[in-house]
Amino acid sequence: MKKLLVIGIGAGDPDYLTLQAVKAIGRADVFLVLDKGEEKSDLVRLRQDMLARYARPGHRVVQAADPDRDRAAAPAAYAAAVSDWRARRADLYQAFVRDELPAGGTGALLVWGDPSLYDSTIAAVDEVLARADQHFEYSVVPGISCVSALTAAHRIPLNRVGRPVTVTTGRRLAATAAADVPDDVAVMLDAHDAFAGLAEPEAFTIYWGAYVGTPDELLLSGPVAEIAPTIQRVRAEARARKGWIMDTYLLRRVHAAN
Amino acid sequence: MKKLLVIGIGAGDPDYLTLQAVKAIGRADVFLVLDKGEEKSDLVRLRQDMLARYARPGHRVVQAADPDRDRAAAPAAYAAAVSDWRARRADLYQAFVRDELPAGGTGALLVWGDPSLYDSTIAAVDEVLARADQHFEYSVVPGISCVSALTAAHRIPLNRVGRPVTVTTGRRLAATAAADVPDDVAVMLDAHDAFAGLAEPEAFTIYWGAYVGTPDELLLSGPVAEIAPTIQRVRAEARARKGWIMDTYLLRRVHAAN
Ligand SMILES: C[S@@+](CC[C@H](N)C(=O)[O-])C[C@H]1O[C@@H](n2cnc3c(N)ncnc32)[C@H](O)[C@@H]1O
Ligand SMILES: C[S@@+](CC[C@H](N)C(=O)[O-])C[C@H]1O[C@@H](n2cnc3c(N)ncnc32)[C@H](O)[C@@H]1O
Repeated sequence: MKKLLVIGIGAGDPDYLTLQAVKAIGRADVFLVLDKGEEKSDLVRLRQDMLARYARPGHRVVQAADPDRDRAAAPAAYAAAVSDWRARRADLYQAFVRDELPAGGTGALLVWGDPSLYDSTIAAVDEVLARADQHFEYSVVPGISCVSALTAAHRIPLNRVGRPVTVTTGRRLAATAAADVPDDVAVMLDAHDAFAGLAEPEAFTIYWGAYVGTPDELLLSGPVAEIAPTIQRVRAEARARKGWIMDTYLLRRVHAAN
Repeated sequence: MKKLLVIGIGAGDPDYLTLQAVKAIGRADVFLVLDKGEEKSDLVRLRQDMLARYARPGHRVVQAADPDRDRAAAPAAYAAAVSDWRARRADLYQAFVRDELPAGGTGALLVWGDPSLYDSTIAAVDEVLARADQHFEYSVVPGISCVSALTAAHRIPLNRVGRPVTVTTGRRLAATAAADVPDDVAVMLDAHDAFAGLAEPEAFTIYWGAYVGTPDELLLSGPVAEIAPTIQRVRAEARARKGWIMDTYLLRRVHAAN
Protein backbone atom coordinates (compact mmCIF):
# COMPACT_ATOMS: atom_id res chain seq x y z
CA MET A 1 0.00 0.00 0.00
CA LYS A 2 1.33 3.43 -0.91
CA LYS A 3 1.18 6.14 1.71
CA LEU A 4 0.64 9.87 1.47
CA LEU A 5 1.60 12.29 4.24
CA VAL A 6 0.10 15.78 4.41
CA ILE A 7 2.54 17.62 6.64
CA GLY A 8 1.86 20.98 8.26
CA ILE A 9 5.14 22.89 8.43
CA GLY A 10 3.98 25.89 10.47
CA ALA A 11 3.32 29.39 9.26
CA GLY A 12 6.69 31.13 9.23
CA ASP A 13 9.50 30.18 11.56
CA PRO A 14 11.25 26.96 10.46
CA ASP A 15 11.30 26.10 14.17
CA TYR A 16 7.50 25.96 14.15
CA LEU A 17 8.07 22.47 12.73
CA THR A 18 6.89 19.85 15.19
CA LEU A 19 8.92 16.78 16.03
CA GLN A 20 6.12 14.82 14.38
CA ALA A 21 6.59 16.80 11.17
CA VAL A 22 10.36 16.36 11.30
CA LYS A 23 9.88 12.59 11.64
CA ALA A 24 7.29 12.52 8.86
CA ILE A 25 9.63 14.43 6.54
CA GLY A 26 12.31 11.91 7.39
CA ARG A 27 10.05 9.00 6.45
CA ALA A 28 9.06 10.18 2.98
CA ASP A 29 10.62 8.87 -0.21
CA VAL A 30 9.28 11.55 -2.53
CA PHE A 31 8.01 15.11 -2.03
CA LEU A 32 5.63 16.91 -4.34
CA VAL A 33 6.41 20.61 -4.48
CA LEU A 34 3.95 22.88 -6.23
CA ASP A 35 5.41 25.82 -8.01
CA LYS A 36 3.03 28.72 -7.55
CA GLY A 37 4.90 30.83 -10.06
CA GLU A 38 5.05 33.52 -7.45
CA GLU A 39 7.66 35.83 -6.14
CA LYS A 40 7.65 34.18 -2.76
CA SER A 41 11.18 32.89 -3.08
CA ASP A 42 11.73 33.10 0.69
CA LEU A 43 8.99 30.54 1.18
CA VAL A 44 10.36 28.24 -1.49
CA ARG A 45 13.78 28.48 0.13
CA LEU A 46 12.32 27.75 3.55
CA ARG A 47 10.86 24.48 2.25
CA GLN A 48 14.08 23.57 0.46
CA ASP A 49 16.03 24.14 3.67
CA MET A 50 13.63 21.90 5.59
CA LEU A 51 14.08 19.10 3.06
CA ALA A 52 17.85 19.53 3.02
CA ARG A 53 17.87 19.22 6.78
CA TYR A 54 15.24 16.68 7.63
CA ALA A 55 14.52 14.55 4.56
CA ARG A 56 16.37 11.29 4.36
CA PRO A 57 19.33 10.84 2.01
CA GLY A 58 18.15 9.71 -1.39
CA HIS A 59 14.73 11.34 -1.19
CA ARG A 60 13.35 12.77 -4.42
CA VAL A 61 11.57 16.05 -5.08
CA VAL A 62 8.97 16.28 -7.82
CA GLN A 63 7.99 19.72 -9.04
CA ALA A 64 4.64 20.53 -10.63
CA ALA A 65 2.88 23.73 -11.57
CA ASP A 66 0.02 24.58 -9.24
CA PRO A 67 -3.20 24.89 -11.25
CA ASP A 68 -4.32 28.47 -11.64
CA ARG A 69 -7.30 29.47 -9.65
CA ASP A 70 -9.75 31.98 -10.96
CA ARG A 71 -9.64 34.36 -8.02
CA ALA A 72 -11.46 37.04 -9.93
CA ALA A 73 -14.54 34.82 -10.34
CA ALA A 74 -17.75 36.60 -9.44
CA PRO A 75 -19.34 35.32 -6.22
CA ALA A 76 -21.89 33.33 -8.23
CA ALA A 77 -19.11 31.50 -10.06
CA TYR A 78 -16.88 31.23 -7.01
CA ALA A 79 -17.92 27.76 -5.90
CA ALA A 80 -17.52 26.44 -9.43
CA ALA A 81 -14.07 28.01 -9.76
CA VAL A 82 -13.00 26.42 -6.48
CA SER A 83 -14.28 22.99 -7.36
CA ASP A 84 -12.70 23.10 -10.80
CA TRP A 85 -9.41 24.10 -9.25
CA ARG A 86 -9.64 21.41 -6.60
CA ALA A 87 -10.29 18.78 -9.27
CA ARG A 88 -7.11 19.80 -11.06
CA ARG A 89 -5.17 19.66 -7.80
CA ALA A 90 -6.63 16.19 -7.26
CA ASP A 91 -5.41 15.19 -10.74
CA LEU A 92 -1.93 16.27 -9.74
CA TYR A 93 -1.99 14.31 -6.50
CA GLN A 94 -3.42 11.26 -8.22
CA ALA A 95 -0.65 11.32 -10.83
CA PHE A 96 1.94 11.86 -8.10
CA VAL A 97 0.86 8.80 -6.15
CA ARG A 98 0.48 6.70 -9.31
CA ASP A 99 3.63 7.72 -11.17
CA GLU A 100 6.12 8.80 -8.57
CA LEU A 101 5.61 6.51 -5.60
CA PRO A 102 7.11 3.04 -5.74
CA ALA A 103 4.96 0.18 -4.40
CA GLY A 104 4.85 0.58 -0.62
CA GLY A 105 6.49 3.99 -0.95
CA THR A 106 5.66 7.16 0.98
CA GLY A 107 4.95 10.51 -0.63
CA ALA A 108 4.64 13.81 1.18
CA LEU A 109 3.00 17.17 0.63
CA LEU A 110 4.29 20.07 2.72
CA VAL A 111 1.50 22.45 3.71
CA TRP A 112 2.00 25.96 5.02
CA GLY A 113 0.80 26.47 8.60
CA ASP A 114 -1.83 24.01 9.74
CA PRO A 115 -3.35 21.90 6.93
CA SER A 116 -6.81 22.27 8.49
CA LEU A 117 -6.96 26.05 8.16
CA TYR A 118 -7.85 27.69 4.84
CA ASP A 119 -5.95 25.16 2.80
CA SER A 120 -7.34 22.84 0.14
CA THR A 121 -4.84 20.00 0.26
CA ILE A 122 -7.03 17.74 2.41
CA ALA A 123 -10.10 18.35 0.25
CA ALA A 124 -8.14 17.58 -2.91
CA VAL A 125 -6.72 14.36 -1.45
CA ASP A 126 -10.25 13.37 -0.40
CA GLU A 127 -11.33 13.98 -3.97
CA VAL A 128 -8.66 11.58 -5.22
CA LEU A 129 -9.72 8.92 -2.73
CA ALA A 130 -13.35 9.27 -3.81
CA ARG A 131 -12.44 8.37 -7.39
CA ALA A 132 -12.61 4.80 -8.65
CA ASP A 133 -9.69 2.50 -7.84
CA GLN A 134 -7.80 4.93 -5.69
CA HIS A 135 -6.38 3.33 -2.60
CA PHE A 136 -3.58 4.62 -0.48
CA GLU A 137 -2.98 5.25 3.18
CA TYR A 138 -3.04 8.83 4.18
CA SER A 139 -2.37 10.85 7.29
CA VAL A 140 -2.24 14.49 8.32
CA VAL A 141 0.35 16.11 10.59
CA PRO A 142 -0.97 19.26 12.29
CA GLY A 143 1.05 22.48 12.16
CA ILE A 144 1.31 25.84 13.87
CA SER A 145 -1.22 28.08 12.09
CA CYS A 146 -0.70 31.76 11.41
CA VAL A 147 -3.36 32.44 14.05
CA SER A 148 -1.33 30.67 16.75
CA ALA A 149 1.79 32.41 15.50
CA LEU A 150 0.06 35.80 15.59
CA THR A 151 -1.28 35.45 19.12
CA ALA A 152 2.06 34.14 20.43
CA ALA A 153 3.93 37.05 18.82
CA HIS A 154 1.52 39.53 20.44
CA ARG A 155 1.43 37.47 23.65
CA ILE A 156 -2.34 37.55 23.72
CA PRO A 157 -5.03 34.92 24.18
CA LEU A 158 -7.13 34.20 21.09
CA ASN A 159 -10.37 33.93 23.04
CA ARG A 160 -11.58 35.70 26.14
CA VAL A 161 -12.41 33.58 29.20
CA GLY A 162 -15.34 31.30 28.46
CA ARG A 163 -16.15 33.14 25.22
CA PRO A 164 -16.15 32.04 21.57
CA VAL A 165 -13.77 33.17 18.86
CA THR A 166 -14.33 33.18 15.12
CA VAL A 167 -11.81 32.75 12.32
CA THR A 168 -12.81 34.17 8.96
CA THR A 169 -11.57 35.73 5.73
CA GLY A 170 -11.18 39.37 4.76
CA ARG A 171 -13.83 38.90 2.09
CA ARG A 172 -16.33 37.62 4.65
CA LEU A 173 -15.52 40.31 7.18
CA ALA A 174 -16.07 42.99 4.55
CA ALA A 175 -19.49 41.50 3.81
CA THR A 176 -20.56 41.33 7.47
CA ALA A 177 -23.02 43.87 8.89
CA ALA A 178 -21.54 45.96 11.72
CA ALA A 179 -23.69 44.38 14.41
CA ASP A 180 -22.78 40.88 13.26
CA VAL A 181 -19.01 41.28 13.50
CA PRO A 182 -18.06 38.79 16.25
CA ASP A 183 -16.60 40.17 19.48
CA ASP A 184 -13.36 38.26 18.87
CA VAL A 185 -12.46 37.44 15.30
CA ALA A 186 -9.23 36.40 13.59
CA VAL A 187 -9.03 37.37 9.93
CA MET A 188 -6.93 35.74 7.21
CA LEU A 189 -6.70 36.04 3.45
CA ASP A 190 -7.46 39.74 3.50
CA ALA A 191 -6.17 41.42 0.36
CA HIS A 192 -8.17 44.59 0.85
CA ASP A 193 -7.60 45.81 4.40
CA ALA A 194 -11.10 44.90 5.55
CA PHE A 195 -10.20 46.14 9.07
CA ALA A 196 -10.05 49.66 7.67
CA GLY A 197 -13.61 49.39 6.40
CA LEU A 198 -15.18 48.44 9.74
CA ALA A 199 -18.35 50.46 10.29
CA GLU A 200 -17.48 50.85 13.98
CA PRO A 201 -13.71 51.29 14.12
CA GLU A 202 -13.92 52.73 17.62
CA ALA A 203 -15.45 49.50 18.86
CA PHE A 204 -12.42 47.30 18.16
CA THR A 205 -8.81 46.73 19.10
CA ILE A 206 -6.67 45.16 16.38
CA TYR A 207 -3.62 42.91 16.76
CA TRP A 208 -2.01 42.76 13.33
CA GLY A 209 0.97 40.81 12.07
CA ALA A 210 2.69 40.31 8.73
CA TYR A 211 5.29 37.65 7.86
CA VAL A 212 4.82 36.44 11.44
CA GLY A 213 7.60 34.17 12.65
CA THR A 214 10.00 35.24 9.89
CA PRO A 215 12.87 37.76 9.97
CA ASP A 216 10.53 40.25 8.26
CA GLU A 217 7.90 40.00 11.00
CA LEU A 218 5.86 43.17 11.51
CA LEU A 219 3.53 43.62 14.47
CA LEU A 220 1.17 46.47 15.22
CA SER A 221 -1.70 46.77 17.65
CA GLY A 222 -4.05 49.35 19.03
CA PRO A 223 -7.53 50.80 18.69
CA VAL A 224 -8.65 50.33 15.07
CA ALA A 225 -9.83 53.92 14.88
CA GLU A 226 -6.31 55.11 15.67
CA ILE A 227 -4.01 52.59 14.11
CA ALA A 228 -5.75 51.43 10.93
CA PRO A 229 -4.08 54.08 8.74
CA THR A 230 -0.65 53.15 10.10
CA ILE A 231 -1.26 49.47 9.40
CA GLN A 232 -2.42 50.30 5.89
CA ARG A 233 0.70 52.32 5.22
CA VAL A 234 3.10 49.79 6.76
CA ARG A 235 1.35 46.99 4.90
CA ALA A 236 1.51 48.76 1.54
CA GLU A 237 5.17 49.63 2.03
CA ALA A 238 6.10 46.09 3.06
CA ARG A 239 4.22 44.66 0.14
CA ALA A 240 5.93 47.00 -2.31
CA ARG A 241 9.33 46.25 -0.81
CA LYS A 242 9.04 42.45 -0.81
CA GLY A 243 6.69 42.03 -3.75
CA TRP A 244 4.16 40.07 -1.68
CA ILE A 245 2.66 40.03 1.76
CA MET A 246 1.02 37.59 4.13
CA ASP A 247 -0.75 39.16 7.05
CA THR A 248 -3.41 38.29 9.55
CA TYR A 249 -5.06 39.95 12.52
CA LEU A 250 -7.31 39.58 15.51
CA LEU A 251 -10.12 42.05 16.14
CA ARG A 252 -11.41 42.34 19.68
CA ARG A 253 -14.55 44.31 20.49
CA VAL A 254 -13.71 46.56 23.42
CA HIS A 255 -17.09 46.28 25.10
CA ALA A 256 -18.15 42.72 24.45
CA ALA A 257 -21.75 41.83 25.10
CA ASN A 258 -22.38 38.87 27.33
CA MET B 1 16.71 41.21 33.33
CA LYS B 2 14.92 37.99 34.22
CA LYS B 3 13.05 36.19 31.49
CA LEU B 4 9.85 34.13 31.49
CA LEU B 5 8.95 31.70 28.72
CA VAL B 6 5.38 30.52 28.24
CA ILE B 7 5.81 27.37 26.19
CA GLY B 8 3.00 25.59 24.36
CA ILE B 9 3.73 21.87 24.44
CA GLY B 10 0.92 20.67 22.16
CA ALA B 11 -2.26 18.89 23.15
CA GLY B 12 -1.36 15.23 23.42
CA ASP B 13 1.42 13.65 21.41
CA PRO B 14 4.87 14.51 22.83
CA ASP B 15 5.91 14.88 19.19
CA TYR B 16 3.53 17.84 18.83
CA LEU B 17 6.38 19.77 20.46
CA THR B 18 7.82 22.26 18.02
CA LEU B 19 11.53 22.74 17.52
CA GLN B 20 11.01 26.20 18.97
CA ALA B 21 9.51 24.68 22.12
CA VAL B 22 12.34 22.13 22.38
CA LYS B 23 14.87 24.96 22.17
CA ALA B 24 12.96 27.08 24.67
CA ILE B 25 12.81 24.17 27.13
CA GLY B 26 16.56 23.77 26.67
CA ARG B 27 17.17 27.44 27.51
CA ALA B 28 15.30 27.56 30.81
CA ASP B 29 16.99 27.39 34.20
CA VAL B 30 13.87 26.73 36.24
CA PHE B 31 10.42 25.32 35.48
CA LEU B 32 7.29 26.01 37.44
CA VAL B 33 5.01 22.98 37.49
CA LEU B 34 1.54 23.40 38.90
CA ASP B 35 0.11 20.43 40.68
CA LYS B 36 -3.58 20.28 39.88
CA GLY B 37 -4.17 17.57 42.45
CA GLU B 38 -5.85 15.56 39.77
CA GLU B 39 -5.74 12.02 38.63
CA LYS B 40 -4.18 12.97 35.33
CA SER B 41 -0.93 11.21 36.05
CA ASP B 42 -0.37 10.51 32.34
CA LEU B 43 -0.20 14.24 31.70
CA VAL B 44 2.16 14.83 34.59
CA ARG B 45 4.39 12.06 33.30
CA LEU B 46 4.32 13.48 29.78
CA ARG B 47 5.67 16.77 31.09
CA GLN B 48 8.30 15.06 33.21
CA ASP B 49 9.46 13.08 30.19
CA MET B 50 9.74 16.28 28.15
CA LEU B 51 11.90 17.89 30.81
CA ALA B 52 14.03 14.80 31.21
CA ARG B 53 14.64 14.81 27.48
CA TYR B 54 14.91 18.42 26.50
CA ALA B 55 15.75 20.50 29.58
CA ARG B 56 19.39 21.26 30.10
CA PRO B 57 21.41 19.46 32.74
CA GLY B 58 21.17 21.23 36.07
CA HIS B 59 17.72 22.71 35.45
CA ARG B 60 15.43 22.97 38.46
CA VAL B 61 11.76 22.15 38.79
CA VAL B 62 9.61 24.06 41.26
CA GLN B 63 6.26 22.58 42.22
CA ALA B 64 3.33 24.60 43.43
CA ALA B 65 -0.32 23.86 44.07
CA ASP B 66 -2.60 25.34 41.42
CA PRO B 67 -5.13 27.63 43.11
CA ASP B 68 -8.58 26.11 43.21
CA ARG B 69 -11.10 27.60 40.89
CA ASP B 70 -14.72 27.83 41.88
CA ARG B 71 -16.14 26.06 38.84
CA ALA B 72 -19.52 25.74 40.44
CA ALA B 73 -19.91 29.51 40.64
CA ALA B 74 -23.27 30.71 39.37
CA PRO B 75 -23.06 32.61 36.06
CA ALA B 76 -23.40 35.92 37.90
CA ALA B 77 -20.39 35.13 40.09
CA TYR B 78 -18.44 33.50 37.28
CA ALA B 79 -16.42 36.54 36.22
CA ALA B 80 -15.50 37.27 39.83
CA ALA B 81 -14.46 33.66 40.42
CA VAL B 82 -12.26 33.77 37.32
CA SER B 83 -10.60 37.03 38.22
CA ASP B 84 -9.98 35.92 41.80
CA TRP B 85 -8.43 32.72 40.53
CA ARG B 86 -6.30 34.58 37.99
CA ALA B 87 -5.01 36.91 40.71
CA ARG B 88 -3.88 33.94 42.75
CA ARG B 89 -2.20 32.44 39.72
CA ALA B 90 -0.50 35.80 39.18
CA ASP B 91 0.72 35.70 42.81
CA LEU B 92 2.31 32.32 42.10
CA TYR B 93 4.05 33.54 38.97
CA GLN B 94 5.23 36.69 40.67
CA ALA B 95 6.74 34.68 43.54
CA PHE B 96 8.29 32.26 41.06
CA VAL B 97 10.07 35.02 39.15
CA ARG B 98 11.09 36.81 42.34
CA ASP B 99 12.20 33.87 44.47
CA GLU B 100 13.27 31.17 42.07
CA LEU B 101 14.95 32.94 39.16
CA PRO B 102 18.52 34.10 39.61
CA ALA B 103 19.37 37.55 38.19
CA GLY B 104 19.37 37.21 34.41
CA GLY B 105 17.86 33.74 34.72
CA THR B 106 15.14 32.18 32.60
CA GLY B 107 12.01 30.57 33.97
CA ALA B 108 9.50 28.55 32.00
CA LEU B 109 5.85 27.59 32.24
CA LEU B 110 4.74 24.63 30.14
CA VAL B 111 1.23 25.09 28.78
CA TRP B 112 -0.95 22.34 27.36
CA GLY B 113 -1.77 22.75 23.67
CA ASP B 114 -1.54 26.30 22.40
CA PRO B 115 -1.23 28.95 25.14
CA SER B 116 -3.62 31.22 23.23
CA LEU B 117 -6.58 28.86 23.38
CA TYR B 118 -8.73 28.58 26.53
CA ASP B 119 -5.78 28.91 28.85
CA SER B 120 -5.21 31.61 31.45
CA THR B 121 -1.44 31.61 31.71
CA ILE B 122 -0.97 34.65 29.47
CA ALA B 123 -3.64 36.65 31.29
CA ALA B 124 -2.09 35.81 34.66
CA VAL B 125 1.40 36.82 33.49
CA ASP B 126 -0.08 40.07 32.14
CA GLU B 127 -1.58 40.63 35.55
CA VAL B 128 1.84 40.28 37.18
CA LEU B 129 3.38 42.72 34.71
CA ALA B 130 0.62 45.24 35.41
CA ARG B 131 1.57 45.32 39.10
CA ALA B 132 4.01 47.85 40.49
CA ASP B 133 7.71 47.17 40.06
CA GLN B 134 7.34 44.02 38.02
CA HIS B 135 9.78 43.90 35.16
CA PHE B 136 10.86 40.85 33.25
CA GLU B 137 11.13 39.83 29.65
CA TYR B 138 8.50 37.47 28.50
CA SER B 139 7.73 35.50 25.37
CA VAL B 140 5.19 32.96 24.20
CA VAL B 141 5.89 29.85 22.12
CA PRO B 142 2.83 28.68 20.16
CA GLY B 143 1.73 25.05 20.33
CA ILE B 144 -0.47 22.55 18.52
CA SER B 145 -3.96 23.05 19.94
CA CYS B 146 -6.44 20.26 20.51
CA VAL B 147 -8.44 21.68 17.60
CA SER B 148 -5.53 21.21 15.18
CA ALA B 149 -4.91 17.78 16.66
CA LEU B 150 -8.58 16.83 16.24
CA THR B 151 -8.85 17.91 12.62
CA ALA B 152 -5.55 16.22 11.71
CA ALA B 153 -6.67 12.98 13.37
CA HIS B 154 -9.93 13.07 11.41
CA ARG B 155 -8.14 14.35 8.29
CA ILE B 156 -10.67 17.12 7.86
CA PRO B 157 -10.41 20.85 7.26
CA LEU B 158 -11.55 23.03 10.15
CA ASN B 159 -13.27 25.57 7.90
CA ARG B 160 -15.11 25.14 4.63
CA VAL B 161 -13.76 27.03 1.60
CA GLY B 162 -14.04 30.76 2.14
CA ARG B 163 -16.25 30.30 5.19
CA PRO B 164 -15.79 31.18 8.87
CA VAL B 165 -15.33 28.79 11.75
CA THR B 166 -16.06 29.37 15.42
CA VAL B 167 -14.38 27.87 18.47
CA THR B 168 -16.42 27.84 21.64
CA THR B 169 -17.09 26.02 24.91
CA GLY B 170 -19.67 23.37 25.74
CA ARG B 171 -21.30 25.77 28.17
CA ARG B 172 -21.73 28.39 25.44
CA LEU B 173 -22.98 25.89 22.89
CA ALA B 174 -25.60 24.65 25.32
CA ALA B 175 -26.79 28.24 25.79
CA THR B 176 -27.01 29.00 22.05
CA ALA B 177 -30.39 29.10 20.30
CA ALA B 178 -30.71 26.49 17.54
CA ALA B 179 -30.67 29.02 14.72
CA ASP B 180 -27.57 30.70 16.09
CA VAL B 181 -25.36 27.61 16.21
CA PRO B 182 -22.62 28.42 13.69
CA ASP B 183 -22.38 26.25 10.56
CA ASP B 184 -18.88 25.12 11.57
CA VAL B 185 -18.02 25.15 15.24
CA ALA B 186 -15.31 23.49 17.29
CA VAL B 187 -16.24 22.86 20.91
CA MET B 188 -13.92 22.49 23.89
CA LEU B 189 -14.37 22.26 27.64
CA ASP B 190 -17.64 20.38 27.36
CA ALA B 191 -18.35 18.45 30.53
CA HIS B 192 -22.00 17.84 29.71
CA ASP B 193 -22.19 16.45 26.17
CA ALA B 194 -23.70 19.62 24.72
CA PHE B 195 -23.68 17.98 21.27
CA ALA B 196 -26.36 15.60 22.51
CA GLY B 197 -28.61 18.51 23.42
CA LEU B 198 -28.61 20.17 20.00
CA ALA B 199 -32.14 21.17 19.06
CA GLU B 200 -31.49 20.11 15.46
CA PRO B 201 -29.34 16.98 15.68
CA GLU B 202 -30.23 16.02 12.12
CA ALA B 203 -28.68 19.27 10.87
CA PHE B 204 -25.11 18.48 11.97
CA THR B 205 -22.25 16.10 11.41
CA ILE B 206 -19.92 15.66 14.39
CA TYR B 207 -16.21 14.84 14.42
CA TRP B 208 -15.37 13.89 17.98
CA GLY B 209 -12.07 12.99 19.61
CA ALA B 210 -10.89 12.18 23.12
CA TYR B 211 -7.29 12.02 24.35
CA VAL B 212 -6.34 13.01 20.81
CA GLY B 213 -2.71 12.39 19.98
CA THR B 214 -2.20 10.00 22.89
CA PRO B 215 -2.19 6.19 23.00
CA ASP B 216 -5.76 6.38 24.35
CA GLU B 217 -7.04 8.40 21.39
CA LEU B 218 -10.70 7.79 20.55
CA LEU B 219 -12.28 9.11 17.35
CA LEU B 220 -15.89 8.97 16.25
CA SER B 221 -17.76 10.81 13.54
CA GLY B 222 -21.10 10.82 11.79
CA PRO B 223 -24.50 12.49 11.76
CA VAL B 224 -25.22 13.80 15.26
CA ALA B 225 -28.71 12.31 15.18
CA GLU B 226 -27.22 8.86 14.68
CA ILE B 227 -23.98 8.86 16.57
CA ALA B 228 -24.55 11.07 19.62
CA PRO B 229 -25.66 8.16 21.83
CA THR B 230 -22.59 6.15 20.86
CA ILE B 231 -20.30 9.07 21.66
CA GLN B 232 -22.03 9.55 25.00
CA ARG B 233 -21.57 5.90 25.87
CA VAL B 234 -17.95 5.70 24.70
CA ARG B 235 -17.16 8.95 26.50
CA ALA B 236 -18.72 7.79 29.79
CA GLU B 237 -16.92 4.45 29.61
CA ALA B 238 -13.56 6.04 28.85
CA ARG B 239 -14.00 8.53 31.62
CA ALA B 240 -14.87 5.82 34.11
CA ARG B 241 -11.94 3.70 32.99
CA LYS B 242 -9.29 6.43 33.13
CA GLY B 243 -10.80 8.59 35.83
CA TRP B 244 -10.77 11.69 33.63
CA ILE B 245 -11.38 12.69 30.05
CA MET B 246 -10.41 15.42 27.67
CA ASP B 247 -12.45 15.58 24.51
CA THR B 248 -13.31 18.05 21.80
CA TYR B 249 -15.35 18.05 18.62
CA LEU B 250 -16.25 19.87 15.44
CA LEU B 251 -19.88 20.31 14.43
CA ARG B 252 -20.60 20.95 10.77
CA ARG B 253 -24.03 21.95 9.57
CA VAL B 254 -24.90 19.71 6.64
CA HIS B 255 -26.73 22.34 4.65
CA ALA B 256 -24.83 25.52 5.33
CA ALA B 257 -26.47 28.78 4.38
CA ASN B 258 -24.44 31.11 2.22
C1 LIG C 1 -4.23 30.08 2.26
S1 LIG C 1 -4.11 30.65 3.90
C2 LIG C 1 -3.21 29.34 4.63
C3 LIG C 1 -3.15 29.40 6.13
C4 LIG C 1 -2.30 28.31 6.76
N1 LIG C 1 -2.81 26.98 6.46
C5 LIG C 1 -2.20 28.51 8.26
O1 LIG C 1 -2.50 27.57 9.02
O2 LIG C 1 -1.77 29.58 8.68
C6 LIG C 1 -2.94 31.95 3.74
C7 LIG C 1 -3.22 33.12 4.65
O3 LIG C 1 -2.70 32.83 5.94
C8 LIG C 1 -2.21 34.01 6.52
N2 LIG C 1 -0.78 33.76 6.86
C9 LIG C 1 -0.08 32.64 6.64
N3 LIG C 1 1.15 32.73 7.15
C10 LIG C 1 1.25 33.94 7.74
C11 LIG C 1 2.27 34.60 8.46
N4 LIG C 1 3.45 34.02 8.71
N5 LIG C 1 2.02 35.85 8.92
C12 LIG C 1 0.83 36.42 8.71
N6 LIG C 1 -0.17 35.84 8.03
C13 LIG C 1 0.02 34.60 7.56
C14 LIG C 1 -2.42 35.13 5.57
O4 LIG C 1 -3.64 35.74 5.93
C15 LIG C 1 -2.57 34.42 4.26
O5 LIG C 1 -3.42 35.13 3.39
C1 LIG D 1 -8.40 24.40 29.34
S1 LIG D 1 -8.59 23.88 27.67
C2 LIG D 1 -6.95 24.02 27.09
C3 LIG D 1 -6.80 23.88 25.61
C4 LIG D 1 -5.36 23.93 25.12
N1 LIG D 1 -4.73 25.21 25.44
C5 LIG D 1 -5.28 23.66 23.63
O1 LIG D 1 -4.70 24.47 22.89
O2 LIG D 1 -5.78 22.61 23.20
C6 LIG D 1 -8.81 22.14 27.91
C7 LIG D 1 -9.81 21.54 26.91
O3 LIG D 1 -9.12 21.27 25.70
C8 LIG D 1 -9.60 20.10 25.11
N2 LIG D 1 -8.46 19.19 24.91
C9 LIG D 1 -7.17 19.42 25.26
N3 LIG D 1 -6.39 18.42 24.87
C10 LIG D 1 -7.17 17.53 24.24
C11 LIG D 1 -6.92 16.29 23.59
N4 LIG D 1 -5.69 15.78 23.49
N5 LIG D 1 -7.98 15.63 23.06
C12 LIG D 1 -9.21 16.15 23.13
N6 LIG D 1 -9.50 17.32 23.71
C13 LIG D 1 -8.48 18.01 24.26
C14 LIG D 1 -10.69 19.55 26.00
O4 LIG D 1 -11.91 20.06 25.50
C15 LIG D 1 -10.37 20.20 27.31
O5 LIG D 1 -11.55 20.39 28.06
